[in-house]
Amino acid sequence: MDRAERAFSDLKTHLAEIEDLDRIESLLAWDQQTIMPPKGGAGRAEQLATLTKLIHERLTSEQTGRLLDEAAPFAEGQAYDSFEASLIRVTRRDYEKARRVPTELATEMARLSAQAYPEWVEAKHQADFSRFLPFLEQQLELRRRYIACFEPAESPYDVLLDDFDPGMTTAEVADVFATLREGLKPLVAWVRERADAVDDGLLHGQFPIDQQRQFALAVIERFGYSAEAWRLDPTEHPFASAIGIDDIRLTTRFDESWVNQGLFATMHECGHGLYEHGIDQALDRSPLAEGGSLAMHESQSRTWENIVGRSRPFWRHFFPSFRDTFPEAMEGVDEEAVYRAVNKMQPSLIRVEADELTYNLHIVLRFELEQALLAGDVKPAELPEVWNARMRDDLGIEPPDDGQGVLQDVHWAIGLIGYFPTYALGNLIAAQLHERAQADLPDLEAQWAAGEFGQLRHWHQSHIHRHGRILTTKDLLERIVGGGLSAEPLLRYLRNKVSDLYGEPPATAAA
Amino acid sequence: MDRAERAFSDLKTHLAEIEDLDRIESLLAWDQQTIMPPKGGAGRAEQLATLTKLIHERLTSEQTGRLLDEAAPFAEGQAYDSFEASLIRVTRRDYEKARRVPTELATEMARLSAQAYPEWVEAKHQADFSRFLPFLEQQLELRRRYIACFEPAESPYDVLLDDFDPGMTTAEVADVFATLREGLKPLVAWVRERADAVDDGLLHGQFPIDQQRQFALAVIERFGYSAEAWRLDPTEHPFASAIGIDDIRLTTRFDESWVNQGLFATMHECGHGLYEHGIDQALDRSPLAEGGSLAMHESQSRTWENIVGRSRPFWRHFFPSFRDTFPEAMEGVDEEAVYRAVNKMQPSLIRVEADELTYNLHIVLRFELEQALLAGDVKPAELPEVWNARMRDDLGIEPPDDGQGVLQDVHWAIGLIGYFPTYALGNLIAAQLHERAQADLPDLEAQWAAGEFGQLRHWHQSHIHRHGRILTTKDLLERIVGGGLSAEPLLRYLRNKVSDLYGEPPATAAA
Repeated sequence: MDRAERAFSDLKTHLAEIEDLDRIESLLAWDQQTIMPPKGGAGRAEQLATLTKLIHERLTSEQTGRLLDEAAPFAEGQAYDSFEASLIRVTRRDYEKARRVPTELATEMARLSAQAYPEWVEAKHQADFSRFLPFLEQQLELRRRYIACFEPAESPYDVLLDDFDPGMTTAEVADVFATLREGLKPLVAWVRERADAVDDGLLHGQFPIDQQRQFALAVIERFGYSAEAWRLDPTEHPFASAIGIDDIRLTTRFDESWVNQGLFATMHECGHGLYEHGIDQALDRSPLAEGGSLAMHESQSRTWENIVGRSRPFWRHFFPSFRDTFPEAMEGVDEEAVYRAVNKMQPSLIRVEADELTYNLHIVLRFELEQALLAGDVKPAELPEVWNARMRDDLGIEPPDDGQGVLQDVHWAIGLIGYFPTYALGNLIAAQLHERAQADLPDLEAQWAAGEFGQLRHWHQSHIHRHGRILTTKDLLERIVGGGLSAEPLLRYLRNKVSDLYGEPPATAAA
Repeated sequence: MDRAERAFSDLKTHLAEIEDLDRIESLLAWDQQTIMPPKGGAGRAEQLATLTKLIHERLTSEQTGRLLDEAAPFAEGQAYDSFEASLIRVTRRDYEKARRVPTELATEMARLSAQAYPEWVEAKHQADFSRFLPFLEQQLELRRRYIACFEPAESPYDVLLDDFDPGMTTAEVADVFATLREGLKPLVAWVRERADAVDDGLLHGQFPIDQQRQFALAVIERFGYSAEAWRLDPTEHPFASAIGIDDIRLTTRFDESWVNQGLFATMHECGHGLYEHGIDQALDRSPLAEGGSLAMHESQSRTWENIVGRSRPFWRHFFPSFRDTFPEAMEGVDEEAVYRAVNKMQPSLIRVEADELTYNLHIVLRFELEQALLAGDVKPAELPEVWNARMRDDLGIEPPDDGQGVLQDVHWAIGLIGYFPTYALGNLIAAQLHERAQADLPDLEAQWAAGEFGQLRHWHQSHIHRHGRILTTKDLLERIVGGGLSAEPLLRYLRNKVSDLYGEPPATAAA
């Protein structure tokens, strides 16, 4: 073994321990948000802080830098997507990004987010933007300082975007989002006038939680869930967590009087879980054993929640057991009625409750406002007014107060600026991938109607999941669809769905 | 702040982080043994190994040594039981013990235990001692090497004992165990002839698990359990775990056809939990925030399981709800019958199923054999023969095979030599403490009969729990009962119980 090879082997061991600590951090957070006794909170915060500090210390240590330098020759000449070249490339990137941010700034960011969170909760509750304003101003200031730690980019926003989707630029996102908005606005306006043609009242009623859980489990077991390597637990805000490739923990929230929420949240989180569970075991205990980007991750959750879960063939298969699980609520209801109900489209105020069609406009709005705030083109104090005007313009509705408007999301309170785009990019990529999957697997929908989802899962696993962080969003799209981001597949998908539910829109609406 | 004070403050921070990691390790182990998906096992083993390594590295680091040296003057002149003096004394002890064991030996011990465990499972299953023999020989050899890392003690066994009960010596334990055995043997022989006078058949039958859980929870809620800071979950081998002073996790195992097991295991683990929950908050995030010794810990679990849980006043209070919880199984059964059933005494082969009277003889046997093995007075190959002869002598029964004899316990397989005594010491200390508690709180039993256990908990909390590791077993006994270990209180307690159940034994039996 030569020096570089030995350094690579040491680097692998060093990173394996950091990855163990990362997984442990996920377990602590999962436990905190599902089953921890309430009074355990104070101690848990200390445990998490210690772990975060340790992970940061180890990643940014001189040792990491030295091993990266010494191991570099070992990966030279190896393929871009080899384990060796990828481990060094991805770790070098993580290392350099982490080293650029002074501990003092990182601490200040963590402290401000912890302070701002309860203030945001109160401000939202009281619909009082002025209460939140000073925290938003401070968050923007810290983000500007954060951005200043890095080489100047084409747009300052690029630096933030890069944290969630490596290599993705503001210009690229702005381009597809503009197309998306342009395509969606007339369609939304047309649907708004006839939204009531679809009745989703049947999703409200009495749906006992135990039965909801049983039905949701039966669904995701067909998707790939198994008790051998997964869990499903209740929580307040659903999420998926990978404690290991073979220890996937989904969380969800069932509402006894509204069956929609728990079922679709479970399918959504299952999509995230399938990604983490599908990573090549050879990447285990390395920083490559995670999803490639938040946008790719979201493409997976949206595939299973929307493209599969809101499809006709899905309900062809599952409607009979759905009816048998909820015989009273489903009395006199047929498959078609359920299919229409779970797809009802109507402009609404709250992003997380929005339908597939209008959802993306909520994101484009946030993406553009974030850039304007960072650039100083919109002053934080002007935000409610700008927000409301934009809601009127895009969706034809206006929030009655800021609690249902600009204050609705937690992201800005905890410093997550640049994160929102990943949600719409996920929808967009899911549609791009699905057109390719349909071309590769022509009888996909017939399989779903027969309750078979293995081919679709396998397609995603072999094209996306197994690569972990070896390939970026761009790499994956280039390999799978032979190009970059495109809004067209999503627009095609949504136009089809609109036609199916509300009839053919006029040419002016389908611009 | 002078140099020593600053060093003390740094030491406190350094140790707080190690303590956080210790708590995290407890959470990982708890999760593994209760709710982790089975396939998560391989990844969890890596996570635990990384954490253990990190904790060991930090505790034994040069930094710990330097801070201890520099901070020492700060604690000088402070009281023995002050936080400052105790933190330095206890940490110095942990540090020096951990530094004496070479990493190589520690690794070898961990590896052998991991290898020996499945072999022991198989050997026990097949009742094949010869299969286990080579592992026992290796464990003894490693323990000898471990002992050789320390200053020679009066007995080599002292070194092992000290890991579980700091400062306790073999001579002291041997002394009280000899008295215990001498007192118990004739009593056991007398009871053996009339064991059938007590019928415990009523504890077998149909006891639905949900109801068992509900009843056990109602009991421990009276002891001090609350959902705010505790959990109770099912597991294979019950244990209690403190993820924090305010995050106590009890585990238990309910058997649908035998109500005894789950109920008494829950009360037992609750005793451990009350100890950890009763530690002074001022000790939080320090190495002092744990129980003082395993023997003290066991005294707490035995107090609640046996002294309280198998008492008349306990059943005076709880029998009506027990009967209402299990109306079919309890049909025609009265309070007295249940009290007698849960106290039935009869020599039996398996330690963990033994009653209060005979249990201690199982421990004395193991304590003496461990010393003989270490000294070479008994060869490992001779062990089954010696074991069986001793069982005949002490309990009047003999194992039909080694699975129910020398192979029954996991301890020796995983290198836990010197651990067994803590179980009987716990019983012995529980009785010593209880005589004192009864003198301090004369109407204790009347309170129990009224379902009030707060005074007893408070007594234990203020005399024992709150001190954490500040006081050793010896310190505590000296302060509370004004002396050292004594077998007499336990013998008095057991003689009383025998009389109550089987009538007055003749003078020769109560020797």
